[in-house]
Amino acid sequence: MQETRLDTARIRAARWVIDPVFLDTPLYRCETLEPNLGCAVSIKLETANPVRSFKGRGTEVIAGRLAEHGPSAVVCASAGNLGQALAWSGRRRGLDVTVVASRFAPATKLDRIRALDARLVLVDGDFEAARERAAAIARHDGVRLVEDSLDIETCEGAATIGLELVNTPFDAVLIALGGGAMATGVGHVVKALAPGAEVICVQPLGAPAMTRSWHRRRVVTTDSADTIADGVAGRRPIPAVLDDLLLVADDAVLVREASIIAGMRMLFDHAGLVVEPSAALGVAAMLEDRDRFAGRHVVTIVCGGNVDMDAYRRWVGTAA
Amino acid sequence: MQETRLDTARIRAARWVIDPVFLDTPLYRCETLEPNLGCAVSIKLETANPVRSFKGRGTEVIAGRLAEHGPSAVVCASAGNLGQALAWSGRRRGLDVTVVASRFAPATKLDRIRALDARLVLVDGDFEAARERAAAIARHDGVRLVEDSLDIETCEGAATIGLELVNTPFDAVLIALGGGAMATGVGHVVKALAPGAEVICVQPLGAPAMTRSWHRRRVVTTDSADTIADGVAGRRPIPAVLDDLLLVADDAVLVREASIIAGMRMLFDHAGLVVEPSAALGVAAMLEDRDRFAGRHVVTIVCGGNVDMDAYRRWVGTAA
Repeated sequence: MQETRLDTARIRAARWVIDPVFLDTPLYRCETLEPNLGCAVSIKLETANPVRSFKGRGTEVIAGRLAEHGPSAVVCASAGNLGQALAWSGRRRGLDVTVVASRFAPATKLDRIRALDARLVLVDGDFEAARERAAAIARHDGVRLVEDSLDIETCEGAATIGLELVNTPFDAVLIALGGGAMATGVGHVVKALAPGAEVICVQPLGAPAMTRSWHRRRVVTTDSADTIADGVAGRRPIPAVLDDLLLVADDAVLVREASIIAGMRMLFDHAGLVVEPSAALGVAAMLEDRDRFAGRHVVTIVCGGNVDMDAYRRWVGTAA
Repeated sequence: MQETRLDTARIRAARWVIDPVFLDTPLYRCETLEPNLGCAVSIKLETANPVRSFKGRGTEVIAGRLAEHGPSAVVCASAGNLGQALAWSGRRRGLDVTVVASRFAPATKLDRIRALDARLVLVDGDFEAARERAAAIARHDGVRLVEDSLDIETCEGAATIGLELVNTPFDAVLIALGGGAMATGVGHVVKALAPGAEVICVQPLGAPAMTRSWHRRRVVTTDSADTIADGVAGRRPIPAVLDDLLLVADDAVLVREASIIAGMRMLFDHAGLVVEPSAALGVAAMLEDRDRFAGRHVVTIVCGGNVDMDAYRRWVGTAA
């Protein structure tokens, strides 16, 4: 394998910085999903922790290293989950955390960021507008800017998921693709330690920038993003992250909104899991291409559960 | 502490027999529940495993020890979760598993027992009728009878949850009370290793036999049980289990059905957890006695998630 920006020894070292509440998350065969999907399915569950997503792994690495130099300030743009996680990691270390988010992000994510004592700055645009504002705040205030997927700690943190996958055999892993921290991090570890397994990234058709970039092997941006999977709705892939993704991903696929909703409903009805749309991308990919996965053992990373419950009730149809 | 039937060294040893997929389950502060409950709440989550309840811990101990002597047969009565767990543990060790259950048990639990290749025998009565039939089958066929809460392995398995609690400080643990395996097992460990913490058992008002027995310090049976919490709907406490419970429990409380439903809804809306009624008993107890828990740090064991989804949709009410 050509070298990515990641290093397996550094990823192993990251485990020592991360609060154990985010590590060694459940990994289990979910046979109740299998009749509907036609393959063996294992769930890697990243929702049973204080911030209900995998993002705490990365923010622990960032905040842990920052705090070594005493109290300081940090700012990030977030679709909602990174901000919660950075607020959680920063609060317990006395860091001054500012999160910039779109005012159209799910209210539940914004409320949680506030509840975790972070300063929340809302922008009128989408996630890309939040990225610009966060960079401006960092420049103006002279504080550390955390850039999801670009900052190597965010990738190293996510990559620790990979270390927890490779002890048991599997044929393919399905990874939600947004900025690329999880895909490049987990992908790096899988390619290094379980090279026989296929690394497949999954993105919504409505927010396809990184997937299109991967297929064309150059950055492709989009003018808009339109998906319920708010956690992965970026439009401007980061070149260095794309370079890594080209080295570790075997494929990148796009799925329809209806499949994401069907995936959420299936995880609710047959696995008893409440997940946000981004966390259902893997099941959506299995639903859209059963032949590809038939008879294989597929791991899907259920990466977050921060979802507006009114919208969730509509999606999974909880009116009996 | 006077001696229970349990032994902490044996409980530690049980961890080596239990498949790791059931061990070291998530334990985390759930701040999103706290504004509604008025205390610090930690969740111990036992639903993210192949049988979606804590019962696998005990059946692993039973099946592991049985299998040491080569293939054999085993029968149990089950409200649904023990049967699934014994079927899972037996299947991978080549044991011949028979489960006796009430035909009124949730269809989802019965379907799962069948799917796990166990022989399922249905009785017309309730769980106590299933217990009688299982004993008769064991006598007639000369096979091992597994009696939940009486067989020490079921308590030792459940007690391993306790080992995973005592490393972090807490003020009280709320434990669903049915036959008593979890309450005596976890209670034993907490009293041995974290004696300052309060052990509180929670049972539905509609199935109060063990709680009434604990308060009167002698076995009290009831003629019927009427609760949605099917996992804890026993009517005839086992004397040896009551004796242990008297040594380790600080209190046993009864909660209303409406509180159980409110607890399920709260876990769904504010923690993103799909749980069966028995697993909401702890939250129900907090809802019914806020003053008791105000300002304290309470751990609640979310012990199972096998729930009929049509009923669940009604309970968590839902039309947005």
